[in-house]
Amino acid sequence: MINKLCIIGVGLIGGSLARDLRAAGVVREIVGHGRGLGNLELAVELGVIDRAAVSSADAVRGADMVVIAVPVGAIGQVLADIAPAIGAQSVVTDVGSVKGSVVAAARDSFKQHFSRFVPGHPIAGTERSGVGASLSGLYRGRHVILTPESDTAGDAVQRVSDMWRHTGARVSTMSAQEHDAVLAASSHLPHMLAYALVDMLVRRDDHRKVFDFAAGGFRDVTRIAASDPTMWRDICLNNRKAIVEMLRQYRDDLGAMIAAIDKGDGQWLEETFARAKHAREILFPNNDK
Amino acid sequence: MINKLCIIGVGLIGGSLARDLRAAGVVREIVGHGRGLGNLELAVELGVIDRAAVSSADAVRGADMVVIAVPVGAIGQVLADIAPAIGAQSVVTDVGSVKGSVVAAARDSFKQHFSRFVPGHPIAGTERSGVGASLSGLYRGRHVILTPESDTAGDAVQRVSDMWRHTGARVSTMSAQEHDAVLAASSHLPHMLAYALVDMLVRRDDHRKVFDFAAGGFRDVTRIAASDPTMWRDICLNNRKAIVEMLRQYRDDLGAMIAAIDKGDGQWLEETFARAKHAREILFPNNDK
Repeated sequence: MINKLCIIGVGLIGGSLARDLRAAGVVREIVGHGRGLGNLELAVELGVIDRAAVSSADAVRGADMVVIAVPVGAIGQVLADIAPAIGAQSVVTDVGSVKGSVVAAARDSFKQHFSRFVPGHPIAGTERSGVGASLSGLYRGRHVILTPESDTAGDAVQRVSDMWRHTGARVSTMSAQEHDAVLAASSHLPHMLAYALVDMLVRRDDHRKVFDFAAGGFRDVTRIAASDPTMWRDICLNNRKAIVEMLRQYRDDLGAMIAAIDKGDGQWLEETFARAKHAREILFPNNDK
Repeated sequence: MINKLCIIGVGLIGGSLARDLRAAGVVREIVGHGRGLGNLELAVELGVIDRAAVSSADAVRGADMVVIAVPVGAIGQVLADIAPAIGAQSVVTDVGSVKGSVVAAARDSFKQHFSRFVPGHPIAGTERSGVGASLSGLYRGRHVILTPESDTAGDAVQRVSDMWRHTGARVSTMSAQEHDAVLAASSHLPHMLAYALVDMLVRRDDHRKVFDFAAGGFRDVTRIAASDPTMWRDICLNNRKAIVEMLRQYRDDLGAMIAAIDKGDGQWLEETFARAKHAREILFPNNDK
Protein backbone atom coordinates (compact mmCIF):
# COMPACT_ATOMS: atom_id res chain seq x y z
CA MET A 1 0.00 0.00 0.00
CA ILE A 2 1.25 3.48 -0.91
CA ASN A 3 0.31 6.02 1.73
CA LYS A 4 1.08 9.18 -0.19
CA LEU A 5 1.80 8.97 -3.89
CA CYS A 6 3.29 12.06 -5.48
CA ILE A 7 3.11 12.49 -9.23
CA ILE A 8 5.26 15.23 -10.74
CA GLY A 9 3.88 15.82 -14.20
CA VAL A 10 0.24 14.72 -14.30
CA GLY A 11 -0.06 14.01 -18.00
CA LEU A 12 -0.83 10.94 -20.07
CA ILE A 13 1.78 8.77 -18.36
CA GLY A 14 1.51 10.02 -14.77
CA GLY A 15 -2.27 10.41 -14.94
CA SER A 16 -2.82 6.92 -16.30
CA LEU A 17 -0.62 5.45 -13.57
CA ALA A 18 -2.58 7.35 -10.89
CA ARG A 19 -5.89 6.11 -12.31
CA ASP A 20 -4.72 2.48 -12.27
CA LEU A 21 -3.31 2.61 -8.75
CA ARG A 22 -6.45 4.21 -7.41
CA ALA A 23 -8.61 1.62 -9.17
CA ALA A 24 -6.43 -1.14 -7.71
CA GLY A 25 -7.01 0.30 -4.24
CA VAL A 26 -3.31 0.40 -3.42
CA VAL A 27 -2.92 4.10 -2.73
CA ARG A 28 -4.38 6.30 0.05
CA GLU A 29 -3.66 9.81 -1.26
CA ILE A 30 -2.42 11.16 -4.58
CA VAL A 31 -0.80 14.58 -4.73
CA GLY A 32 0.20 16.09 -8.05
CA HIS A 33 2.36 18.88 -9.27
CA GLY A 34 3.17 20.14 -12.73
CA ARG A 35 3.86 23.24 -14.75
CA GLY A 36 0.41 23.74 -16.23
CA LEU A 37 -2.10 25.05 -13.69
CA GLY A 38 -5.05 24.34 -15.97
CA ASN A 39 -3.90 20.76 -16.41
CA LEU A 40 -3.56 20.33 -12.62
CA GLU A 41 -7.06 21.72 -12.03
CA LEU A 42 -8.41 19.32 -14.63
CA ALA A 43 -6.55 16.46 -12.91
CA VAL A 44 -8.31 17.25 -9.62
CA GLU A 45 -11.63 17.69 -11.39
CA LEU A 46 -11.27 14.30 -13.10
CA GLY A 47 -10.35 12.72 -9.74
CA VAL A 48 -6.98 11.61 -11.11
CA ILE A 49 -5.24 13.31 -8.18
CA ASP A 50 -6.68 14.32 -4.80
CA ARG A 51 -4.94 17.66 -4.64
CA ALA A 52 -2.37 19.78 -6.41
CA ALA A 53 0.72 21.06 -4.62
CA VAL A 54 2.14 24.50 -5.32
CA SER A 55 5.72 23.30 -5.77
CA SER A 56 7.43 20.03 -6.49
CA ALA A 57 9.31 20.22 -3.18
CA ASP A 58 6.00 20.69 -1.37
CA ALA A 59 4.46 17.83 -3.34
CA VAL A 60 7.09 15.25 -2.41
CA ARG A 61 7.20 16.09 1.31
CA GLY A 62 6.05 13.04 3.26
CA ALA A 63 5.41 10.98 0.11
CA ASP A 64 6.50 7.36 0.33
CA MET A 65 6.41 7.08 -3.47
CA VAL A 66 7.37 9.84 -5.89
CA VAL A 67 6.90 9.35 -9.63
CA ILE A 68 8.58 11.88 -11.90
CA ALA A 69 6.44 11.69 -15.01
CA VAL A 70 7.77 14.66 -16.98
CA PRO A 71 9.51 14.39 -20.36
CA VAL A 72 13.13 13.34 -20.24
CA GLY A 73 14.38 16.86 -20.92
CA ALA A 74 12.78 18.17 -17.72
CA ILE A 75 13.74 15.37 -15.33
CA GLY A 76 17.11 16.86 -14.34
CA GLN A 77 15.50 20.07 -13.08
CA VAL A 78 12.80 18.19 -11.16
CA LEU A 79 15.44 15.99 -9.49
CA ALA A 80 17.37 19.08 -8.42
CA ASP A 81 14.19 20.76 -7.14
CA ILE A 82 12.95 17.85 -5.05
CA ALA A 83 16.30 16.55 -3.73
CA PRO A 84 16.30 18.67 -0.53
CA ALA A 85 12.72 17.62 0.33
CA ILE A 86 13.07 13.87 -0.20
CA GLY A 87 12.70 11.90 3.03
CA ALA A 88 14.79 8.89 3.97
CA GLN A 89 11.78 6.61 3.57
CA SER A 90 10.71 7.97 0.17
CA VAL A 91 11.24 6.03 -3.00
CA VAL A 92 11.62 8.08 -6.17
CA THR A 93 11.24 6.78 -9.72
CA ASP A 94 10.86 8.31 -13.17
CA VAL A 95 9.38 7.40 -16.54
CA GLY A 96 12.02 8.87 -18.85
CA SER A 97 12.68 7.32 -22.27
CA VAL A 98 16.44 7.54 -21.72
CA LYS A 99 18.09 6.19 -18.61
CA GLY A 100 21.85 6.88 -18.63
CA SER A 101 21.50 10.65 -18.48
CA VAL A 102 18.74 10.42 -15.84
CA VAL A 103 20.87 8.19 -13.64
CA ALA A 104 23.75 10.68 -13.88
CA ALA A 105 21.46 13.58 -13.00
CA ALA A 106 19.93 11.70 -10.06
CA ARG A 107 23.35 10.81 -8.73
CA ASP A 108 24.33 14.49 -8.92
CA SER A 109 21.22 15.78 -7.18
CA PHE A 110 20.44 13.03 -4.69
CA LYS A 111 23.99 12.29 -3.51
CA GLN A 112 23.76 9.99 -0.45
CA HIS A 113 20.02 9.50 -1.11
CA PHE A 114 20.71 8.15 -4.61
CA SER A 115 20.01 4.62 -3.39
CA ARG A 116 16.31 5.62 -3.06
CA PHE A 117 16.06 6.46 -6.77
CA VAL A 118 14.87 3.71 -9.11
CA PRO A 119 15.22 4.66 -12.78
CA GLY A 120 12.21 3.43 -14.76
CA HIS A 121 10.63 3.50 -18.19
CA PRO A 122 7.13 2.30 -19.01
CA ILE A 123 7.00 1.49 -22.71
CA ALA A 124 3.55 2.82 -23.37
CA GLY A 125 1.91 5.96 -24.58
CA THR A 126 -0.07 7.44 -27.39
CA GLU A 127 0.51 10.49 -29.58
CA ARG A 128 -1.81 12.42 -27.22
CA SER A 129 -0.67 14.20 -24.09
CA GLY A 130 -2.06 15.90 -20.98
CA VAL A 131 -4.19 14.51 -18.17
CA GLY A 132 -7.24 14.66 -20.44
CA ALA A 133 -5.64 11.89 -22.49
CA SER A 134 -4.89 9.70 -19.45
CA LEU A 135 -6.80 6.45 -19.18
CA SER A 136 -7.08 3.30 -17.12
CA GLY A 137 -5.44 0.20 -18.50
CA LEU A 138 -2.75 1.99 -20.51
CA TYR A 139 -0.08 -0.27 -19.00
CA ARG A 140 -1.86 -3.62 -19.08
CA GLY A 141 0.47 -6.13 -20.72
CA ARG A 142 3.04 -3.43 -21.48
CA HIS A 143 6.70 -3.53 -20.50
CA VAL A 144 8.16 -1.40 -17.75
CA ILE A 145 11.95 -1.45 -17.63
CA LEU A 146 13.75 -0.59 -14.39
CA THR A 147 17.48 0.12 -14.55
CA PRO A 148 18.74 -0.02 -10.95
CA GLU A 149 22.42 0.70 -10.34
CA SER A 150 24.60 -1.43 -8.08
CA ASP A 151 23.98 1.00 -5.23
CA THR A 152 20.20 1.26 -5.68
CA ALA A 153 18.39 -0.08 -2.61
CA GLY A 154 16.77 -3.47 -3.18
CA ASP A 155 13.61 -2.58 -1.24
CA ALA A 156 13.17 0.55 -3.34
CA VAL A 157 13.35 -1.50 -6.55
CA GLN A 158 10.84 -3.92 -5.07
CA ARG A 159 8.39 -1.17 -4.20
CA VAL A 160 8.55 0.41 -7.66
CA SER A 161 8.23 -2.99 -9.26
CA ASP A 162 5.18 -3.79 -7.12
CA MET A 163 3.59 -0.48 -8.02
CA TRP A 164 3.87 -1.12 -11.76
CA ARG A 165 2.63 -4.69 -11.42
CA HIS A 166 -0.63 -3.31 -10.00
CA THR A 167 -1.23 -1.70 -13.42
CA GLY A 168 -0.90 -5.04 -15.16
CA ALA A 169 2.50 -4.15 -16.61
CA ARG A 170 5.36 -6.62 -17.06
CA VAL A 171 8.41 -5.40 -15.17
CA SER A 172 11.98 -6.16 -16.33
CA THR A 173 15.34 -4.91 -15.19
CA MET A 174 18.48 -4.24 -17.19
CA SER A 175 21.39 -1.81 -17.04
CA ALA A 176 20.82 1.80 -18.08
CA GLN A 177 23.33 1.35 -20.89
CA GLU A 178 21.55 -1.71 -22.25
CA HIS A 179 18.20 0.06 -21.99
CA ASP A 180 19.50 3.02 -23.97
CA ALA A 181 20.94 0.78 -26.69
CA VAL A 182 17.80 -1.38 -26.98
CA LEU A 183 15.50 1.66 -27.05
CA ALA A 184 17.75 3.47 -29.53
CA ALA A 185 17.16 0.51 -31.84
CA SER A 186 13.47 -0.20 -31.22
CA SER A 187 12.18 3.31 -30.68
CA HIS A 188 14.58 6.19 -31.23
CA LEU A 189 15.89 5.04 -34.64
CA PRO A 190 12.37 4.39 -36.06
CA HIS A 191 11.23 7.83 -34.88
CA MET A 192 14.21 9.48 -36.58
CA LEU A 193 13.52 7.57 -39.81
CA ALA A 194 9.86 8.57 -39.81
CA TYR A 195 10.62 12.23 -39.14
CA ALA A 196 13.28 12.25 -41.88
CA LEU A 197 10.91 10.59 -44.35
CA VAL A 198 8.05 13.05 -43.83
CA ASP A 199 10.43 16.00 -43.80
CA MET A 200 12.01 14.91 -47.07
CA LEU A 201 8.73 14.23 -48.87
CA VAL A 202 7.03 17.40 -47.76
CA ARG A 203 9.81 19.43 -49.39
CA ARG A 204 8.89 17.96 -52.80
CA ASP A 205 6.85 20.08 -55.20
CA ASP A 206 4.45 17.17 -55.65
CA HIS A 207 4.09 16.42 -51.93
CA ARG A 208 0.34 16.84 -51.95
CA LYS A 209 0.04 14.08 -54.56
CA VAL A 210 2.49 11.91 -52.63
CA PHE A 211 0.32 12.10 -49.52
CA ASP A 212 -2.98 11.91 -51.43
CA PHE A 213 -2.03 8.67 -53.16
CA ALA A 214 -0.36 7.13 -50.14
CA ALA A 215 -1.65 3.77 -48.98
CA GLY A 216 -1.85 2.29 -45.49
CA GLY A 217 1.82 1.36 -45.41
CA PHE A 218 2.89 4.97 -45.73
CA ARG A 219 0.47 6.02 -43.01
CA ASP A 220 1.83 3.28 -40.76
CA VAL A 221 5.45 4.23 -41.37
CA THR A 222 4.90 7.93 -40.81
CA ARG A 223 2.43 7.78 -37.90
CA ILE A 224 5.14 8.35 -35.28
CA ALA A 225 6.29 11.49 -37.12
CA ALA A 226 3.29 13.08 -35.36
CA SER A 227 5.05 12.59 -32.00
CA ASP A 228 5.94 15.54 -29.81
CA PRO A 229 8.94 17.45 -31.29
CA THR A 230 10.25 18.79 -27.97
CA MET A 231 10.16 15.39 -26.33
CA TRP A 232 12.03 13.87 -29.24
CA ARG A 233 14.58 16.66 -29.35
CA ASP A 234 15.30 15.89 -25.71
CA ILE A 235 15.51 12.15 -26.28
CA CYS A 236 18.06 12.82 -29.05
CA LEU A 237 20.09 15.12 -26.84
CA ASN A 238 20.02 12.62 -23.97
CA ASN A 239 20.89 9.52 -25.98
CA ARG A 240 23.14 11.04 -28.61
CA LYS A 241 25.82 8.43 -28.79
CA ALA A 242 23.55 5.41 -29.22
CA ILE A 243 21.22 7.16 -31.68
CA VAL A 244 24.06 8.48 -33.83
CA GLU A 245 25.61 5.02 -33.90
CA MET A 246 22.30 3.46 -35.04
CA LEU A 247 21.71 6.10 -37.68
CA ARG A 248 25.23 5.74 -39.05
CA GLN A 249 24.85 2.01 -39.41
CA TYR A 250 21.45 2.42 -41.00
CA ARG A 251 22.86 4.93 -43.47
CA ASP A 252 25.61 2.47 -44.38
CA ASP A 253 23.03 -0.28 -44.86
CA LEU A 254 21.03 1.98 -47.16
CA GLY A 255 24.19 2.44 -49.19
CA ALA A 256 24.36 -1.30 -49.81
CA MET A 257 20.69 -1.37 -50.77
CA ILE A 258 21.10 1.56 -53.15
CA ALA A 259 24.03 -0.22 -54.82
CA ALA A 260 21.98 -3.42 -55.21
CA ILE A 261 19.01 -1.61 -56.77
CA ASP A 262 21.26 0.52 -58.96
CA LYS A 263 22.98 -2.49 -60.48
CA GLY A 264 19.76 -4.53 -60.61
CA ASP A 265 20.93 -7.21 -58.21
CA GLY A 266 17.60 -9.01 -57.85
CA GLN A 267 19.04 -11.85 -55.82
CA TRP A 268 20.45 -9.53 -53.15
CA LEU A 269 17.17 -7.66 -52.96
CA GLU A 270 14.95 -10.72 -52.73
CA GLU A 271 17.17 -12.35 -50.09
CA THR A 272 17.31 -9.20 -47.99
CA PHE A 273 13.56 -8.63 -48.20
CA ALA A 274 12.85 -12.29 -47.43
CA ARG A 275 15.16 -12.23 -44.40
CA ALA A 276 13.41 -9.14 -43.07
CA LYS A 277 9.93 -10.57 -43.68
CA HIS A 278 10.86 -13.84 -42.02
CA ALA A 279 12.43 -12.08 -39.04
CA ARG A 280 9.46 -9.85 -38.49
CA GLU A 281 7.05 -12.77 -38.69
CA ILE A 282 9.10 -14.82 -36.24
CA LEU A 283 9.67 -11.99 -33.81
CA PHE A 284 6.12 -10.66 -33.97
CA PRO A 285 4.14 -13.88 -34.32
CA ASN A 286 0.93 -11.87 -34.10
CA ASN A 287 1.68 -9.58 -37.03
CA ASP A 288 -0.41 -6.62 -36.06
CA LYS A 289 -0.85 -4.45 -32.96
CA MET B 1 -21.84 -3.85 -69.01
CA ILE B 2 -18.89 -6.17 -69.52
CA ASN B 3 -19.85 -9.22 -71.54
CA LYS B 4 -16.76 -11.34 -70.89
CA LEU B 5 -14.30 -10.27 -68.23
CA CYS B 6 -10.95 -12.02 -68.27
CA ILE B 7 -8.78 -11.92 -65.17
CA ILE B 8 -5.18 -13.09 -65.57
CA GLY B 9 -3.91 -13.71 -62.06
CA VAL B 10 -6.88 -14.42 -59.79
CA GLY B 11 -5.32 -13.37 -56.50
CA LEU B 12 -6.12 -10.74 -53.90
CA ILE B 13 -6.28 -7.89 -56.42
CA GLY B 14 -7.90 -9.68 -59.38
CA GLY B 15 -10.22 -11.72 -57.19
CA SER B 16 -11.45 -8.72 -55.25
CA LEU B 17 -12.14 -6.84 -58.46
CA ALA B 18 -14.11 -9.82 -59.84
CA ARG B 19 -16.17 -10.03 -56.65
CA ASP B 20 -17.07 -6.34 -56.76
CA LEU B 21 -18.02 -6.33 -60.45
CA ARG B 22 -20.20 -9.38 -60.02
CA ALA B 23 -21.86 -7.86 -56.97
CA ALA B 24 -22.47 -4.66 -58.93
CA GLY B 25 -24.15 -6.71 -61.67
CA VAL B 26 -22.04 -5.21 -64.43
CA VAL B 27 -20.44 -8.38 -65.81
CA ARG B 28 -21.98 -11.38 -67.58
CA GLU B 29 -19.13 -13.91 -67.46
CA ILE B 30 -15.79 -14.01 -65.66
CA VAL B 31 -13.01 -16.22 -66.98
CA GLY B 32 -9.78 -16.58 -65.07
CA HIS B 33 -6.31 -17.83 -65.72
CA GLY B 34 -3.24 -18.05 -63.53
CA ARG B 35 -0.19 -20.14 -62.78
CA GLY B 36 -1.53 -21.95 -59.73
CA LEU B 37 -4.08 -24.64 -60.58
CA GLY B 38 -5.13 -25.03 -56.96
CA ASN B 39 -5.77 -21.31 -56.71
CA LEU B 40 -7.85 -21.34 -59.90
CA GLU B 41 -9.94 -24.25 -58.63
CA LEU B 42 -10.51 -22.39 -55.39
CA ALA B 43 -11.51 -19.29 -57.38
CA VAL B 44 -14.21 -21.30 -59.21
CA GLU B 45 -15.32 -22.95 -55.99
CA LEU B 46 -15.66 -19.58 -54.27
CA GLY B 47 -17.62 -18.26 -57.26
CA VAL B 48 -15.07 -15.54 -57.87
CA ILE B 49 -14.73 -16.67 -61.51
CA ASP B 50 -17.15 -18.71 -63.59
CA ARG B 51 -14.50 -20.84 -65.21
CA ALA B 52 -10.76 -21.25 -65.53
CA ALA B 53 -9.05 -21.20 -68.91
CA VAL B 54 -6.10 -23.46 -69.68
CA SER B 55 -3.93 -20.70 -71.13
CA SER B 56 -3.85 -16.93 -71.00
CA ALA B 57 -4.33 -16.74 -74.77
CA ASP B 58 -7.41 -18.93 -74.46
CA ALA B 59 -8.67 -16.86 -71.55
CA VAL B 60 -8.57 -13.53 -73.39
CA ARG B 61 -10.20 -14.76 -76.60
CA GLY B 62 -13.47 -12.91 -77.07
CA ALA B 63 -13.11 -10.95 -73.85
CA ASP B 64 -14.18 -7.33 -74.05
CA MET B 65 -12.23 -6.53 -70.86
CA VAL B 66 -8.93 -8.14 -69.86
CA VAL B 67 -7.38 -7.38 -66.47
CA ILE B 68 -3.78 -8.45 -65.95
CA ALA B 69 -3.60 -8.81 -62.20
CA VAL B 70 -0.22 -10.49 -61.81
CA PRO B 71 2.74 -8.94 -59.97
CA VAL B 72 4.68 -6.36 -61.93
CA GLY B 73 7.56 -8.77 -62.61
CA ALA B 74 5.27 -11.13 -64.53
CA ILE B 75 3.32 -8.60 -66.58
CA GLY B 76 5.75 -8.49 -69.50
CA GLN B 77 5.42 -12.23 -70.14
CA VAL B 78 1.61 -12.12 -69.90
CA LEU B 79 1.49 -9.24 -72.38
CA ALA B 80 3.63 -11.20 -74.83
CA ASP B 81 1.51 -14.34 -74.37
CA ILE B 82 -1.86 -12.69 -74.93
CA ALA B 83 -0.90 -10.20 -77.66
CA PRO B 84 -1.70 -12.55 -80.59
CA ALA B 85 -5.13 -13.40 -79.12
CA ILE B 86 -6.33 -9.89 -78.30
CA GLY B 87 -9.31 -8.81 -80.42
CA ALA B 88 -9.78 -5.35 -81.89
CA GLN B 89 -12.67 -4.69 -79.51
CA SER B 90 -10.89 -5.88 -76.38
CA VAL B 91 -9.64 -3.46 -73.77
CA VAL B 92 -6.65 -4.60 -71.72
CA THR B 93 -5.53 -3.11 -68.43
CA ASP B 94 -3.15 -4.08 -65.66
CA VAL B 95 -2.70 -3.46 -61.93
CA GLY B 96 1.09 -3.19 -61.73
CA SER B 97 2.75 -1.00 -59.08
CA VAL B 98 5.12 0.45 -61.66
CA LYS B 99 3.89 1.94 -64.93
CA GLY B 100 6.81 3.07 -67.10
CA SER B 101 8.23 -0.42 -67.61
CA VAL B 102 4.76 -1.89 -68.20
CA VAL B 103 3.95 0.71 -70.84
CA ALA B 104 7.21 -0.09 -72.63
CA ALA B 105 6.48 -3.83 -72.53
CA ALA B 106 2.92 -3.34 -73.77
CA ARG B 107 4.10 -1.16 -76.63
CA ASP B 108 6.58 -3.91 -77.61
CA SER B 109 4.07 -6.74 -77.47
CA PHE B 110 0.86 -5.09 -78.64
CA LYS B 111 2.32 -2.97 -81.45
CA GLN B 112 -0.61 -1.52 -83.47
CA HIS B 113 -3.05 -2.71 -80.78
CA PHE B 114 -1.24 -0.70 -78.11
CA SER B 115 -4.04 1.89 -78.17
CA ARG B 116 -6.30 -0.73 -76.50
CA PHE B 117 -4.01 -1.03 -73.46
CA VAL B 118 -4.80 1.17 -70.47
CA PRO B 119 -2.05 1.05 -67.82
CA GLY B 120 -3.58 1.04 -64.35
CA HIS B 121 -2.70 0.77 -60.68
CA PRO B 122 -5.22 0.32 -57.87
CA ILE B 123 -3.61 1.54 -54.65
CA ALA B 124 -5.01 -1.14 -52.41
CA GLY B 125 -4.00 -4.45 -50.98
CA THR B 126 -3.11 -6.24 -47.81
CA GLU B 127 -0.08 -8.30 -46.82
CA ARG B 128 -2.09 -11.42 -47.75
CA SER B 129 -2.24 -12.92 -51.21
CA GLY B 130 -4.15 -15.51 -53.26
CA VAL B 131 -7.84 -15.69 -54.13
CA GLY B 132 -8.61 -16.89 -50.61
CA ALA B 133 -7.64 -13.44 -49.39
CA SER B 134 -9.82 -11.63 -51.94
CA LEU B 135 -12.78 -9.71 -50.59
CA SER B 136 -15.59 -7.41 -51.63
CA GLY B 137 -15.11 -3.74 -50.95
CA LEU B 138 -11.31 -3.74 -51.09
CA TYR B 139 -11.36 -0.78 -53.45
CA ARG B 140 -14.08 1.34 -51.87
CA GLY B 141 -12.72 4.86 -51.43
CA ARG B 142 -9.27 3.82 -52.68
CA HIS B 143 -7.38 5.44 -55.50
CA VAL B 144 -6.92 3.84 -58.90
CA ILE B 145 -4.40 5.61 -61.10
CA LEU B 146 -4.58 5.21 -64.88
CA THR B 147 -1.60 6.33 -66.95
CA PRO B 148 -2.81 6.50 -70.57
CA GLU B 149 -0.30 7.49 -73.24
CA SER B 150 -1.03 10.01 -75.97
CA ASP B 151 -1.93 7.14 -78.32
CA THR B 152 -4.17 5.27 -75.86
CA ALA B 153 -7.76 5.13 -77.14
CA GLY B 154 -10.09 7.43 -75.24
CA ASP B 155 -12.95 4.92 -75.22
CA ALA B 156 -10.63 2.28 -73.72
CA VAL B 157 -9.66 4.64 -70.90
CA GLN B 158 -13.34 5.38 -70.33
CA ARG B 159 -14.25 1.70 -70.08
CA VAL B 160 -11.46 0.91 -67.61
CA SER B 161 -12.35 3.98 -65.60
CA ASP B 162 -16.03 2.96 -65.50
CA MET B 163 -15.08 -0.54 -64.41
CA TRP B 164 -13.11 0.71 -61.42
CA ARG B 165 -15.79 3.21 -60.45
CA HIS B 166 -18.19 0.27 -60.01
CA THR B 167 -15.95 -0.90 -57.13
CA GLY B 168 -16.28 2.45 -55.37
CA ALA B 169 -12.72 3.44 -56.23
CA ARG B 170 -11.65 6.99 -57.07
CA VAL B 171 -10.05 7.06 -60.51
CA SER B 172 -7.30 9.54 -61.43
CA THR B 173 -5.04 9.84 -64.44
CA MET B 174 -1.45 11.01 -64.68
CA SER B 175 1.59 10.21 -66.81
CA ALA B 176 3.45 6.94 -66.20
CA GLN B 177 6.53 8.93 -65.25
CA GLU B 178 4.66 10.99 -62.69
CA HIS B 179 3.02 7.85 -61.29
CA ASP B 180 6.38 6.16 -60.87
CA ALA B 181 7.87 9.20 -59.10
CA VAL B 182 4.89 9.68 -56.78
CA LEU B 183 4.75 5.98 -55.91
CA ALA B 184 8.51 5.81 -55.43
CA ALA B 185 8.03 8.47 -52.76
CA SER B 186 4.83 7.30 -51.10
CA SER B 187 5.25 3.55 -51.35
CA HIS B 188 8.55 2.23 -52.70
CA LEU B 189 10.81 4.35 -50.47
CA PRO B 190 8.89 3.52 -47.26
CA HIS B 191 9.04 -0.19 -48.09
CA MET B 192 12.80 0.00 -48.63
CA LEU B 193 13.24 1.85 -45.34
CA ALA B 194 11.18 -0.72 -43.43
CA TYR B 195 13.04 -3.66 -44.97
CA ALA B 196 16.41 -2.05 -44.23
CA LEU B 197 15.39 -1.31 -40.63
CA VAL B 198 14.28 -4.85 -39.83
CA ASP B 199 17.25 -6.34 -41.64
CA MET B 200 19.66 -4.15 -39.68
CA LEU B 201 18.09 -4.80 -36.29
CA VAL B 202 17.78 -8.53 -36.72
CA ARG B 203 21.54 -8.75 -37.26
CA ARG B 204 22.14 -7.36 -33.75
CA ASP B 205 23.05 -9.77 -30.97
CA ASP B 206 20.31 -8.28 -28.80
CA HIS B 207 17.64 -8.37 -31.53
CA ARG B 208 15.26 -10.45 -29.46
CA LYS B 209 15.23 -7.79 -26.75
CA VAL B 210 14.85 -5.06 -29.36
CA PHE B 211 11.71 -6.71 -30.70
CA ASP B 212 10.43 -7.77 -27.26
CA PHE B 213 10.55 -4.24 -25.90
CA ALA B 214 9.29 -2.60 -29.07
CA ALA B 215 6.20 -0.42 -28.77
CA GLY B 216 3.43 0.25 -31.25
CA GLY B 217 5.48 2.74 -33.24
CA PHE B 218 8.06 0.13 -34.14
CA ARG B 219 5.35 -2.32 -35.15
CA ASP B 220 3.76 0.34 -37.33
CA VAL B 221 7.02 1.29 -39.01
CA THR B 222 8.05 -2.29 -39.74
CA ARG B 223 4.65 -3.73 -40.70
CA ILE B 224 5.31 -3.39 -44.44
CA ALA B 225 8.57 -5.33 -44.07
CA ALA B 226 6.26 -8.36 -44.05
CA SER B 227 5.36 -7.65 -47.70
CA ASP B 228 6.12 -10.17 -50.44
CA PRO B 229 9.88 -10.22 -51.21
CA THR B 230 9.54 -11.30 -54.86
CA MET B 231 6.99 -8.62 -55.61
CA TRP B 232 9.20 -5.97 -54.06
CA ARG B 233 12.30 -7.21 -55.82
CA ASP B 234 10.41 -6.76 -59.08
CA ILE B 235 9.16 -3.30 -58.16
CA CYS B 236 12.76 -2.30 -57.43
CA LEU B 237 13.99 -3.71 -60.72
CA ASN B 238 11.19 -2.00 -62.64
CA ASN B 239 11.48 1.44 -61.02
CA ARG B 240 15.22 1.54 -60.36
CA LYS B 241 15.94 5.09 -61.32
CA ALA B 242 13.23 6.74 -59.23
CA ILE B 243 13.82 4.51 -56.19
CA VAL B 244 17.58 5.00 -56.24
CA GLU B 245 17.08 8.75 -56.51
CA MET B 246 14.73 8.76 -53.50
CA LEU B 247 17.03 6.57 -51.42
CA ARG B 248 20.04 8.74 -52.22
CA GLN B 249 18.26 11.87 -51.15
CA TYR B 250 17.00 10.18 -48.00
CA ARG B 251 20.52 9.03 -47.17
CA ASP B 252 21.78 12.59 -47.60
CA ASP B 253 19.00 13.87 -45.34
CA LEU B 254 19.96 11.32 -42.69
CA GLY B 255 23.49 12.67 -42.88
CA ALA B 256 22.21 16.13 -41.91
CA MET B 257 20.19 14.64 -39.05
CA ILE B 258 23.17 12.64 -37.79
CA ALA B 259 25.30 15.80 -37.80
CA ALA B 260 22.64 17.70 -35.85
CA ILE B 261 22.30 15.00 -33.18
CA ASP B 262 26.05 14.51 -33.01
CA LYS B 263 26.72 18.15 -32.26
CA GLY B 264 23.64 18.48 -30.03
CA ASP B 265 21.85 20.99 -32.24
CA GLY B 266 18.54 20.98 -30.38
CA GLN B 267 17.08 23.82 -32.40
CA TRP B 268 17.62 22.04 -35.72
CA LEU B 269 16.11 18.85 -34.33
CA GLU B 270 13.05 20.47 -32.80
CA GLU B 271 12.35 22.51 -35.94
CA THR B 272 12.71 19.50 -38.22
CA PHE B 273 10.51 17.29 -36.05
CA ALA B 274 7.92 20.07 -35.70
CA ARG B 275 7.83 20.62 -39.46
CA ALA B 276 7.31 16.89 -40.05
CA LYS B 277 4.61 16.63 -37.38
CA HIS B 278 2.81 19.67 -38.75
CA ALA B 279 3.02 18.40 -42.32
CA ARG B 280 1.69 14.99 -41.43
CA GLU B 281 -1.21 16.46 -39.48
CA ILE B 282 -2.13 18.84 -42.31
CA LEU B 283 -1.78 16.23 -45.04
CA PHE B 284 -3.53 13.46 -43.12
CA PRO B 285 -6.19 15.44 -41.25
CA ASN B 286 -7.60 12.18 -39.92
CA ASN B 287 -4.38 10.99 -38.27
CA ASP B 288 -4.93 7.26 -38.27
CA LYS B 289 -5.96 4.64 -40.82
